[in-house]
Amino acid sequence: MKVYTDYLCLTTKKTREIVNITAQVREALEKSGVKEGLVLVNAMHITASVFINDEESGLKEDFLKWLEELAPVRPEYKHHQTGEDNADAHLKRTIMGREVVVAITKGGLDFGPWEQIFYGEFDGQRKKLVLVKIIGE
Amino acid sequence: MKVYTDYLCLTTKKTREIVNITAQVREALEKSGVKEGLVLVNAMHITASVFINDEESGLKEDFLKWLEELAPVRPEYKHHQTGEDNADAHLKRTIMGREVVVAITKGGLDFGPWEQIFYGEFDGQRKKLVLVKIIGE
Amino acid sequence: MKVYTDYLCLTTKKTREIVNITAQVREALEKSGVKEGLVLVNAMHITASVFINDEESGLKEDFLKWLEELAPVRPEYKHHQTGEDNADAHLKRTIMGREVVVAITKGGLDFGPWEQIFYGEFDGQRKKLVLVKIIGE
Repeated sequence: MKVYTDYLCLTTKKTREIVNITAQVREALEKSGVKEGLVLVNAMHITASVFINDEESGLKEDFLKWLEELAPVRPEYKHHQTGEDNADAHLKRTIMGREVVVAITKGGLDFGPWEQIFYGEFDGQRKKLVLVKIIGE
Repeated sequence: MKVYTDYLCLTTKKTREIVNITAQVREALEKSGVKEGLVLVNAMHITASVFINDEESGLKEDFLKWLEELAPVRPEYKHHQTGEDNADAHLKRTIMGREVVVAITKGGLDFGPWEQIFYGEFDGQRKKLVLVKIIGE
Repeated sequence: MKVYTDYLCLTTKKTREIVNITAQVREALEKSGVKEGLVLVNAMHITASVFINDEESGLKEDFLKWLEELAPVRPEYKHHQTGEDNADAHLKRTIMGREVVVAITKGGLDFGPWEQIFYGEFDGQRKKLVLVKIIGE
């Protein structure tokens, strides 16, 4: 059994941003030498997401607008009584998900035709980490 | 370590449909010979989901109606400027999730009393794939 | 390859409650002896969740209030024609997610600074199980 661990470092320019990280995950997979197994990719911060969808700029805008409808910025969240102001980011990340698990088959990410891995940042402009954990053989 | 890969092929009759795929996953597990480990089941398309819930026809109707409230069909999504018309399906799939990871214990899916695996299709009437990846021993 | 299975038993006092289960998962990890691998933690019931977020009491209140907005208690769900009255709990669990997969690195949960594992109960006051499955070496 082979195990490989990597950490991707991301600092977005905007507060909310969707970043394609498929190439970095593929690079980690290559370094791991794993041909068959699973890769876990997760945000290590609780106001950010890792998810799989389509690389299309209009759709990324739709996601951010939709998240603002479902989990709006609001002053009155209880979480803000601690001095924080990012409760909406915790909720947005919940909708989009913390992690993805992807199959590794014949040395590659076993993806359908449009699957791409994205980092979703909802409280950005500071350094955040994404974990890549690969197990297999 | 044993690894097994299978692809389920689904073509729904309706645009939006929820299909129980537990039996197919169990069949793959049997073929794999894995007694202890993990099985990943994921939609390979970005307008479809794999999720776990209850086999009850009323609840399935509730899910579809609720998703239409949270992620409605709308002409004005930016994604539609590409010629697509299925942005709502990308959002609906996000709510329901892309994948499940299920424990394998003593050769079976280690499920609670009501857990069943479903394929959620939100842009159907064409051939789609679900990946089943099993690792363990 | 090592595999370890554990079941956590939870009975919440309230119908809806968020319970921190990080210590119990760490305990299972220690018993497993696994130093590198993956741990799956999932609700075995379809009206409950396992998710990762922040240990902050205000935020937990925000989550429960927000879920009531997105997936309200309503008499008219189709699921209730079976005699059930908890359709909202199925929907709330869907938003929060069934499971998390966490990396194990150097014998510990490979977590960011604020990550904690929670059990989200949406139809409580009765015994429920959470599965912990660990694979690795």
